[in-house]
Amino acid sequence: MQLTPTDRTRHRRLAERGSFDLELINAIIDEALICHVGFNVDGTPVVIPTIHARMGNDVYLHGAVGNNMLRSLDRGVDACVTMTLVDGLVLARSAFHHSMNYRSVMLFGRATKVDDTDEKRAAFDALVEHVAAGRTRDARPPRADEMRKTLLLKLPITEASAKVRTGGPVDDADDMDMPIWAGVLPCTMTFADPTPDTGVIAPVPDYVTNYSR
Amino acid sequence: MQLTPTDRTRHRRLAERGSFDLELINAIIDEALICHVGFNVDGTPVVIPTIHARMGNDVYLHGAVGNNMLRSLDRGVDACVTMTLVDGLVLARSAFHHSMNYRSVMLFGRATKVDDTDEKRAAFDALVEHVAAGRTRDARPPRADEMRKTLLLKLPITEASAKVRTGGPVDDADDMDMPIWAGVLPCTMTFADPTPDTGVIAPVPDYVTNYSR
Repeated sequence: MQLTPTDRTRHRRLAERGSFDLELINAIIDEALICHVGFNVDGTPVVIPTIHARMGNDVYLHGAVGNNMLRSLDRGVDACVTMTLVDGLVLARSAFHHSMNYRSVMLFGRATKVDDTDEKRAAFDALVEHVAAGRTRDARPPRADEMRKTLLLKLPITEASAKVRTGGPVDDADDMDMPIWAGVLPCTMTFADPTPDTGVIAPVPDYVTNYSR
Repeated sequence: MQLTPTDRTRHRRLAERGSFDLELINAIIDEALICHVGFNVDGTPVVIPTIHARMGNDVYLHGAVGNNMLRSLDRGVDACVTMTLVDGLVLARSAFHHSMNYRSVMLFGRATKVDDTDEKRAAFDALVEHVAAGRTRDARPPRADEMRKTLLLKLPITEASAKVRTGGPVDDADDMDMPIWAGVLPCTMTFADPTPDTGVIAPVPDYVTNYSR
C-alpha cells in the first residue's frame, strides 16, 4: 500500500531515494531501536531520542507522566518522528562523493493520549517486545500503579515517507582510474555478551543469547 | 570545562543523568556517526538525519546548495541538533523498569553559513575524517566547483548538554527474588568486511580494515 504524499512528506531532493510504501515504512520503524522526536517548546525545536513501538498503523511513545516531551505532545502540537538505520559508509574516490547507505522514515502528525486499559497494556507489551522480542514471556507485567505512572501516546502512520540509499559510490568518470580504494563499509548494530544483574540465577534466555533485529 | 545551563538545556527529569561537561559533550559528538537536526518549516518541526563533524567548538553541517534543511537553517532559525549513542538494552525483572543505556547530546543554536575558503576546506576534511579517520590522505580533495556546490553551516557548541545512562536494571525490592533473568545486553555499531567498488585495484586501507569509532 502506498501512502499519499503531502507537502511535508514529498521528497524535494534525491526523490529517487524516496518511497511512500507502507510495508517499507513499517519495516524501518520496526527495525529501528529508537526514534528521534521533534516538537516545539515555546517556538524552539527540540529533538529527543526515545524508544517506540508499532502496533498496526500506529506508533506508540511512552514515558513517565511528568515527561516533558510527552506532556508537550499531549497538548496536540505537531511532531516529526524520525527513524534512521545506518547501513554502510560509502567511500568514494573523491571526498565530494562520499556518502552513506541508510534507511530512514519521517512521520508527521499529532499524538493522542491512550487511556484505554487494554490498549495501554497491549502497547506496553509491544514496547517491551520492540526492544527484545520474547521478553514479555518473562518480565513481570505492569501493575495498575505502574500503568497510571506511565503516559502513553500514539501517532497514526498516515503522513509518512521513507528514504533509502543503497549501493556503492558514484564517482565522476574522470576519477574512476585513480589508484584509490573505494567501496562500502557495511555497518550494523551488534550485541555483545549479556551482563547479568547482581543475584540473577536464571539462565540467559534464548532471545538474549540470539538477539538480533 | 562546564557549559552554562539555559532554559533549553537544563535537565528537567532524571537530572542526575545530565551533564554540561564540554569534554563529555565533545566526545559524544565525535563518536556519533550521524546527528538528527530539528528545525521548523512553516511552523512544523522537521527532524532530519545527517552527517556532522566537529572542529574545536563548532559543529559543521553540509550538503548540496539546494538542500532544504541547510537552506532553512541558513535563514537563521533555531535548531536542535541531537547525537545519540545506544550502549545497551537494560532488561529488568519488571516490564516497567526496562530501560536503555545511552549517551546523548542536545545542542541548541542558530547556524551560520561558512564562506571562507580555508575554513570550508578544513571542514570538508573534518567531515570526511569524521566518517573515516585517515580517509583524507587518499580521497581526491574537493575541486573549486565542488566547493561552490556545497553549502556549509556551523553551530557553536555553547548551548548544549549531555545525558548518560549506565549500569544495570534498577528493579523494585519486591521483584529481586523473581526467577527472571535480568541484566544488560551491550550494543555497539560494528563494521563488516568492506565491499570494493567495481574496478578498484588499490588494496583496502588500514583505516577501513581496522575501522572503529
